[in-house]
Amino acid sequence: MADCIPSDGDLILAGRDDRYGGFIVDSTSLPSDPSTFLENLRHSLLQWKSQSKKGIWLKLPIENVDLVPLAVKEGFCYHHAEKDYLMLTLWIAETPSTLPSNASHQVGVGAMVINDENKVLVVQEQTGPTKGSGVWKMPTGAVLQGEDIKDAVQREVKEETGVDAELVEILGVRQAHDVSFGKSDLFFLCLLRPLPSDISVEESEIAAAEWISLDDYRSQEFNTKSSLLTRIADMVAASLKGEYKGFGAEALSFGFRNSGSYFYHNINDINSYLEQKKSTS
Amino acid sequence: MADCIPSDGDLILAGRDDRYGGFIVDSTSLPSDPSTFLENLRHSLLQWKSQSKKGIWLKLPIENVDLVPLAVKEGFCYHHAEKDYLMLTLWIAETPSTLPSNASHQVGVGAMVINDENKVLVVQEQTGPTKGSGVWKMPTGAVLQGEDIKDAVQREVKEETGVDAELVEILGVRQAHDVSFGKSDLFFLCLLRPLPSDISVEESEIAAAEWISLDDYRSQEFNTKSSLLTRIADMVAASLKGEYKGFGAEALSFGFRNSGSYFYHNINDINSYLEQKKSTS
Repeated sequence: MADCIPSDGDLILAGRDDRYGGFIVDSTSLPSDPSTFLENLRHSLLQWKSQSKKGIWLKLPIENVDLVPLAVKEGFCYHHAEKDYLMLTLWIAETPSTLPSNASHQVGVGAMVINDENKVLVVQEQTGPTKGSGVWKMPTGAVLQGEDIKDAVQREVKEETGVDAELVEILGVRQAHDVSFGKSDLFFLCLLRPLPSDISVEESEIAAAEWISLDDYRSQEFNTKSSLLTRIADMVAASLKGEYKGFGAEALSFGFRNSGSYFYHNINDINSYLEQKKSTS
Repeated sequence: MADCIPSDGDLILAGRDDRYGGFIVDSTSLPSDPSTFLENLRHSLLQWKSQSKKGIWLKLPIENVDLVPLAVKEGFCYHHAEKDYLMLTLWIAETPSTLPSNASHQVGVGAMVINDENKVLVVQEQTGPTKGSGVWKMPTGAVLQGEDIKDAVQREVKEETGVDAELVEILGVRQAHDVSFGKSDLFFLCLLRPLPSDISVEESEIAAAEWISLDDYRSQEFNTKSSLLTRIADMVAASLKGEYKGFGAEALSFGFRNSGSYFYHNINDINSYLEQKKSTS
């Protein structure tokens, strides 16, 4: 082409500006023909540069996989991917990139379910690190995409043991790094109380489930060797005596980014404080 | 080729078994020539199937972008991506896939830094949602990949205001969904105390920083309209009177996945419990 500056809007990839001076390409109206895509991408890049756009977001559905090499060769990098699409970005401003990074953490939950007799619900794994070791451990699992921590821990207990239980409090949070694919891990240790229900083991993952005393749980060598697991057993014992306060779940139903969210905090302490403040004012 | 079953080991992509019955292709010894890669991939798939492998992990550095369409056309899906590589997976077992999902959460921190006069360190944004509104807000920011929550909140305060501060406690955690790229968000609200240092504003992000009274902070319409922000102001006030206990940071230096990790929990409560237990035994 003699003239590199497009005179025809059809040559420009459709999309919309973002709130940060960037541009988001519309992935539903991409030319599927690679040579048309490449021609349009090159025209678009000239236009975006002349408009001083900062960052460009290009989401390519997996059906458009043939376009990926073309975009990379025009300078795009990968940003993140899900099963069925790849997000690419190109930073065209002279200033350092301020593009947000992708998700950095996976989130897991552990369930200390304690019944009226102060017994703890434990499992032996069918697969995984403690398989065949005879270790009785708390049910654990990953929080699914879009799932509340509160719901995740209740679901894991139900799946592994058949027991219905409800979250009392989050007792603590452990952060670890470089756990899988270089990402970090947040583990929410939760206290739950069971609702009337019987043990029914999920056999593909779990070999056995039982209620055992907290003393039997903590005296296992697997636990006594770990200062974290020993600490956890102490926290549960203190909590059962009303001497340890964790974070309860309060539903938020208002405002910016809060709809349908939970705020986990020391509800015991704040309620005592607010009642006392009210009674003295 | 007349014979589809490889007789030559060189035709098989190198790699290693994982602990879950799967296979991880060695991304450092991939044939860079697309037709050689495709031939080897097809031979490898036949072998992996005959060996009853479950899931295949194929990490393609961005330099090998030309191989991406070939892998997708052989049935691979995207799993996750970072700036310089794309991870693809193929589940070849008959059973449902048990491949772990990729990172599901971004993590943010908010800093309520309170000095000896019970004043709170607040900023006005140069960019972002409250720009130009006159709202004084707490410093906030994202936890970087591999960064401890404790370090992240201290870094954000330093970057935005120039003030050195140290974490006292995490006061609460809010989880929200579908925040960016469909991922969830965990926001750790932190209480900090300042170390001797002067305010020095980071001008590209922050328009101004000040110490203001907690009453002036909470009486802003931006805060009184939000039950979350009102609750946070109450939590800080209660904490300053010793009537609210959050989660302090304890370094873990032992055991499985714990090296260099922090366990955030109610250290006040557990220490009181353990001291009392010791003195009565």
